[in-house]
Amino acid sequence: MKLRSGTELKSTHFLQWYKTAHKVIQVLSRPKGRFTVTSAATGILERLNANEVVIGDGGFVFALEKRGYVKAGPWTPEAAVTHPEAVRQLHREFLRAGSNVMQAFTFYASDDKLENRGQTLKITGAQVNEAACDLAREVANEGDALMAGGVCQTPSYLSCKSETEVKAIFKKQLDVFIKKNVDFLIAEYFEHVEEAEWAVQVLKMSGKPVAASMCIGPQGDMHGVPPGECAVRLVKAGAQIVGVNCHFDPLTCVEAVKMMKAAVEKAGLKAHYMVQPLAYHTPDCNCQGFIDLPEFPFALEPRILTRWDMHKYAREAYNAGIRFIGGCCGFEPYHIRAVAEELAPERGFLPQASDKHGLWGAALEMHTKPWVRARARRDYWENIHPASGRPKCPSLSSPEGWGVTKGHTELLQHREATTAQEMQHVLERQKKAKSAV
Amino acid sequence: MKLRSGTELKSTHFLQWYKTAHKVIQVLSRPKGRFTVTSAATGILERLNANEVVIGDGGFVFALEKRGYVKAGPWTPEAAVTHPEAVRQLHREFLRAGSNVMQAFTFYASDDKLENRGQTLKITGAQVNEAACDLAREVANEGDALMAGGVCQTPSYLSCKSETEVKAIFKKQLDVFIKKNVDFLIAEYFEHVEEAEWAVQVLKMSGKPVAASMCIGPQGDMHGVPPGECAVRLVKAGAQIVGVNCHFDPLTCVEAVKMMKAAVEKAGLKAHYMVQPLAYHTPDCNCQGFIDLPEFPFALEPRILTRWDMHKYAREAYNAGIRFIGGCCGFEPYHIRAVAEELAPERGFLPQASDKHGLWGAALEMHTKPWVRARARRDYWENIHPASGRPKCPSLSSPEGWGVTKGHTELLQHREATTAQEMQHVLERQKKAKSAV
Amino acid sequence: MKLRSGTELKSTHFLQWYKTAHKVIQVLSRPKGRFTVTSAATGILERLNANEVVIGDGGFVFALEKRGYVKAGPWTPEAAVTHPEAVRQLHREFLRAGSNVMQAFTFYASDDKLENRGQTLKITGAQVNEAACDLAREVANEGDALMAGGVCQTPSYLSCKSETEVKAIFKKQLDVFIKKNVDFLIAEYFEHVEEAEWAVQVLKMSGKPVAASMCIGPQGDMHGVPPGECAVRLVKAGAQIVGVNCHFDPLTCVEAVKMMKAAVEKAGLKAHYMVQPLAYHTPDCNCQGFIDLPEFPFALEPRILTRWDMHKYAREAYNAGIRFIGGCCGFEPYHIRAVAEELAPERGFLPQASDKHGLWGAALEMHTKPWVRARARRDYWENIHPASGRPKCPSLSSPEGWGVTKGHTELLQHREATTAQEMQHVLERQKKAKSAV
Amino acid sequence: MKLRSGTELKSTHFLQWYKTAHKVIQVLSRPKGRFTVTSAATGILERLNANEVVIGDGGFVFALEKRGYVKAGPWTPEAAVTHPEAVRQLHREFLRAGSNVMQAFTFYASDDKLENRGQTLKITGAQVNEAACDLAREVANEGDALMAGGVCQTPSYLSCKSETEVKAIFKKQLDVFIKKNVDFLIAEYFEHVEEAEWAVQVLKMSGKPVAASMCIGPQGDMHGVPPGECAVRLVKAGAQIVGVNCHFDPLTCVEAVKMMKAAVEKAGLKAHYMVQPLAYHTPDCNCQGFIDLPEFPFALEPRILTRWDMHKYAREAYNAGIRFIGGCCGFEPYHIRAVAEELAPERGFLPQASDKHGLWGAALEMHTKPWVRARARRDYWENIHPASGRPKCPSLSSPEGWGVTKGHTELLQHREATTAQEMQHVLERQKKAKSAV
Repeated sequence: MKLRSGTELKSTHFLQWYKTAHKVIQVLSRPKGRFTVTSAATGILERLNANEVVIGDGGFVFALEKRGYVKAGPWTPEAAVTHPEAVRQLHREFLRAGSNVMQAFTFYASDDKLENRGQTLKITGAQVNEAACDLAREVANEGDALMAGGVCQTPSYLSCKSETEVKAIFKKQLDVFIKKNVDFLIAEYFEHVEEAEWAVQVLKMSGKPVAASMCIGPQGDMHGVPPGECAVRLVKAGAQIVGVNCHFDPLTCVEAVKMMKAAVEKAGLKAHYMVQPLAYHTPDCNCQGFIDLPEFPFALEPRILTRWDMHKYAREAYNAGIRFIGGCCGFEPYHIRAVAEELAPERGFLPQASDKHGLWGAALEMHTKPWVRARARRDYWENIHPASGRPKCPSLSSPEGWGVTKGHTELLQHREATTAQEMQHVLERQKKAKSAV
Repeated sequence: MKLRSGTELKSTHFLQWYKTAHKVIQVLSRPKGRFTVTSAATGILERLNANEVVIGDGGFVFALEKRGYVKAGPWTPEAAVTHPEAVRQLHREFLRAGSNVMQAFTFYASDDKLENRGQTLKITGAQVNEAACDLAREVANEGDALMAGGVCQTPSYLSCKSETEVKAIFKKQLDVFIKKNVDFLIAEYFEHVEEAEWAVQVLKMSGKPVAASMCIGPQGDMHGVPPGECAVRLVKAGAQIVGVNCHFDPLTCVEAVKMMKAAVEKAGLKAHYMVQPLAYHTPDCNCQGFIDLPEFPFALEPRILTRWDMHKYAREAYNAGIRFIGGCCGFEPYHIRAVAEELAPERGFLPQASDKHGLWGAALEMHTKPWVRARARRDYWENIHPASGRPKCPSLSSPEGWGVTKGHTELLQHREATTAQEMQHVLERQKKAKSAV
Repeated sequence: MKLRSGTELKSTHFLQWYKTAHKVIQVLSRPKGRFTVTSAATGILERLNANEVVIGDGGFVFALEKRGYVKAGPWTPEAAVTHPEAVRQLHREFLRAGSNVMQAFTFYASDDKLENRGQTLKITGAQVNEAACDLAREVANEGDALMAGGVCQTPSYLSCKSETEVKAIFKKQLDVFIKKNVDFLIAEYFEHVEEAEWAVQVLKMSGKPVAASMCIGPQGDMHGVPPGECAVRLVKAGAQIVGVNCHFDPLTCVEAVKMMKAAVEKAGLKAHYMVQPLAYHTPDCNCQGFIDLPEFPFALEPRILTRWDMHKYAREAYNAGIRFIGGCCGFEPYHIRAVAEELAPERGFLPQASDKHGLWGAALEMHTKPWVRARARRDYWENIHPASGRPKCPSLSSPEGWGVTKGHTELLQHREATTAQEMQHVLERQKKAKSAV
Repeated sequence: MKLRSGTELKSTHFLQWYKTAHKVIQVLSRPKGRFTVTSAATGILERLNANEVVIGDGGFVFALEKRGYVKAGPWTPEAAVTHPEAVRQLHREFLRAGSNVMQAFTFYASDDKLENRGQTLKITGAQVNEAACDLAREVANEGDALMAGGVCQTPSYLSCKSETEVKAIFKKQLDVFIKKNVDFLIAEYFEHVEEAEWAVQVLKMSGKPVAASMCIGPQGDMHGVPPGECAVRLVKAGAQIVGVNCHFDPLTCVEAVKMMKAAVEKAGLKAHYMVQPLAYHTPDCNCQGFIDLPEFPFALEPRILTRWDMHKYAREAYNAGIRFIGGCCGFEPYHIRAVAEELAPERGFLPQASDKHGLWGAALEMHTKPWVRARARRDYWENIHPASGRPKCPSLSSPEGWGVTKGHTELLQHREATTAQEMQHVLERQKKAKSAV
């Protein structure tokens, strides 16, 4: 194993280290940066070209909703302006956990969304994007991380606005990202490959590296375009990195990215791959993902992945040839740390936050009770099947599965909250759907 | 409903408000402090004597472990010194969520624990306690909150040290709390009523109000003393507030406090009651609580309570006559916010963080998908039985149940990590226990 | 171990035999009767006085409902007249499985019930009772079994008829039992101890041994009389054997009988004990038992006990000092065989049907697939936690829990099927109950 | 709806009848045979050509194992000789439940299997086949049923014997079937299409109709041949009816038959279709079906389908164009009755055993408790999600999945029980497999 910094770490030595890891963690991880093999100056493509693992962060809207700074429903990121200390702190936690990407908190920070979601403070999209970039840059500079700006799907597209109108929205966000000199750009959370292509085309104008990530599973986008075809179209549109994020659990997302990779290679194209899944188990989802689960978004707790589930995910993603590995909704800093710990042999170092963790539960050796001390071992946690503690709850749910998407009147977006009449209409539709089953 | 600040809020009006609450939240909660009926200067006993609800915070060790600042196993709070920004931020989130108590992050901050848990940084218990008090006070001053210092069970007691030795440890922590002029004192997380009595006796010396809380369920303490008897002994030792915290889920804890209340009243004594339970469902626990669950502490995710479970808990606790209502391990800020939202009619106001929440999911009216908009109603969330998403996992576990406690050699605490020999001994014991079932 | 037949079987030899049992089964069980230690002439009390195990049969109404001969709802036994071959065959299967008691199929065979349940064939209670006795006697004579007649709770009692009227109903059945010269009498399936006492008082007039069994759990009868008090009253009324049957799963029933035994002994009385539980897991039941489960009676399948659950039950019952051990609703012949196999060391022989069974799965050694052959061992089956195969179903249900019983107008019995109006009333009650939760 | 007997039943009338069915059942079903539209003389192909529904029976080995007459492991049918009354009774129950096919109990009744499975009674295959035919014919004559003889996969094939040797085994059974003049022949439970073809080729020599049914799911046979290709090959080999039986749950089996039908039609061939699935839920099975589940064969109870699951199955199978609809392992008579009740509108009559059943629980109107009476309605049972009553058990299992089949030495069949050495080998293999996961 050749580390860029010149330090060489024999991989046999490393594996042996890994096995008895907790003894050595302190030596390896304490001196910050000593094993940091890549300077922040190294760009995303250089890292991926060198076959390095780039660890993403987790989803901010869900994490900050639980902390009290984001409103579920609108899901808009004005906290970057109103509560910068909370956003900064979350960035720091992901950095400590091992993230190499500080993605500015700009999800749904487009003017059409902010207006559409009843934002009453007079904060513009530009203000949010600027504040978010500043926070991400500030924390990225504290460690080995790149700073990225991102755009995502727009209410305008769902409401059947024109390509020109939708692209104008992306362009407005991009202007801020260029001004703030982000290290690379992410077009993420797209349900329709067409809109994702438009986003990539706009972002490409910047000359910066572009990563494109759709919120789809193996069944493809909302119009039925399979993951492989989506990936090929995104690469052709100019994305250097393609993949999926959100909507499905880690192993499902990895499966979708594998399909992307196979199709891109079959088409004779070249790309890097990324995956940023949910931290929720979603074996019961249809093509619309966790949005359709009856538990979305306020009763997903029993589905949260353990850190040990994350080890499996990280290994699976790595084995599939994916090198940009992160998380989305539901991820907390300890989930990212688990990814970083699983991939420590490949990366050559542990994240800072591993100071506060024993690999595979090793720190339980210091627990008060002897029977808990006995859990300080990999095979215990690797094989655990945790109980739900909810004997009246089932294992799987039935997703709603309306099957409508862009082009259906049901999905035209408007600025107002749902009216009683609309609600009535929805409830009747659901009743009809249920009785048809 | 008579509010101390002079504002009167008719309770019928309030109930009506509550029903259509999300329309009015902004009016009620935006102007910070306008509806804050109690000034921070009002002490804990005055509030409880006035039958006011005092909302506690959540457990710091678990929340900060997930954020990367506390090590599970030792569970010690040196982050108060090393990462003050992370501790401060968590205080702020609980304050925004509605907490009236900023408890200094001094759990296990006694010298005997710090030494015992392989603390290698040269940070003394006094340093941790001081830093923790400063942070708690700083944030308490930002809102309507009191600041408390706390002590908890010691390795010295488990290792059969004398009353004098154990009391000396509490005294050392108390010295800091007096110096920092805490508003009141908490003796919490005691498995043995005897040690809890010693703690209360020491804390009483300060002249400040003392709350005493044991980590027991309806089956009583580790020596089999029932909750009622524990409560009576603690009140006699001088505690003005008694209750339970940690180890069990909310409804189990409320049950235990009910038993305490009944016994205290039967004994002709007077006290206030507190409850700070886990945010994990624990229907399968024995007297040792969640420590004995095979999922403890790294696979408890599927047991996490939803915010709607918290509504039930808050109501149940209130109906039982408990007025100091908070949380412990597993609580995140949104759990405390749910407690505050459930008790908003009684308190007369919503917490600040409700700005970022629609009561009973009301903000989903702004969601993109119409079928998710249709979930913006109380009866949907109140009746949901969330799926675990884990079809290979059971509902309940078998706790280990060694049944040893203070007085058994197995529980003598030592400074060293578990040796291979000790581990072998434990595994053999477990094997024997299992085959005996 | 002294066997009545004169054959002596050293218990150490037996235990060793048991461990490698499948090799020897054929030797032990093939020659019918060779190890049959008790002649059918030996009465129930002599057997129990000699501390012998008496194995009961399973419940006929549920078994025959699945075979197409009993109607769920009315649950009446006219098949004894209309389809004797089906009733005879079920008796034979239980005999082969190890039962020592052929209980005549006279459940609900009282005239008031038959009339009340819309019986349209003109078959009298006397005809059913006579036919049932003949069938039971015929099969009892084919092996080592006693023949018993039984009475159970009446619609007359529930409808608040007088003691005289209710006793007259029992007397009418008893007349047939005396005429048919049953070996002993069983008063079973009583929800109210008062009615059970009346039944025992009537049956005692015959001079035959009387066993009295209530369908209650540890919470006691429908009027709240605890199991212990029920047992004492039944013994005082003249029952020589007391216990419980139906309504709860095996371990719950054993628990209730333990309470009975403790109370009878405390009262300085003497009795034998019986238990004939459900073959359904009922951890979620309230005092009314499985009747209140939403799955009753047509969706209980996932709750059916495995044969291995029956081994645990038999051992538990034996250890509790219960010697009349049988089954009720849900039991199939293989469940009784499992009881007989578990208690083979105590009884000194295996049942005939063990010819068609390998102890603890031993016959799987002859299976086609090697991985199934590997399941031919006790520890495999003893520790299995079988999956439900139903990922959308929960582990536990919420019983209805109306809490009404004899004395409430809701429970007055009538001859007619439920009217639409009554149904409406019930549904409204349920809705109200649910919303109150 | 034109009934062969000349009775015409307007389908609108029938549907209306069906909705309020329980009122009319007695009228419709009591006069035995009155609505029996087909005389037993009508052959299987005439019935299917007329688009009539032919209802099969359930699996005898599992049903008789529970009754004490078949040994799990060897699974051989010598009870036809030794306990004819038990076999006759089961036939009768299926007939009453609505079966139109009395399949002689000849499963695994080939000499190579009987020898291979340690049969120690000196009963030849011919004796078993003859006795089984006589019993099936006797009961078939009691109602509207055809009598069939069947062959199934042989140990000889698994042990790589030649086509000639394997065919000789089928021929020997066929000789008995011809002598006993069966109405048609069934080649069933084949894991390999090649052996199934051989069987069909032999059976075709008789000139009688041949049905061929494989124990495969949508993934195809053990050598990976897809269901569609299997079906085409079987039709080409001469089978007039093709389908699947055993190994998977009803909906999975229907899915596989749909694939067969599509392929046969695509190939321009003609056939009728049959399905005889398990009565166990198997969502977690791989290509080997329930054999690989850890619960097979002694802990499958929680997976048993309810009667309401059977309604869904019958409708699904009918809608898929399948007309020979029956059951296999796990089916009890009430499961077949449910199939017959669901298809009563199509068939024009209810089975005899519906005398002892209320459609959709209607007879609960005569239950003692009012809240159980309220369950006398279709929407209650149609929507129930029954609890397992097993809070420590999961929903799904992990099948073993060795993936070996004919051609692997592991599967060479021998006469002896597994040796300790073989067992050791198997356990090691399993351990290795598990650690590889």
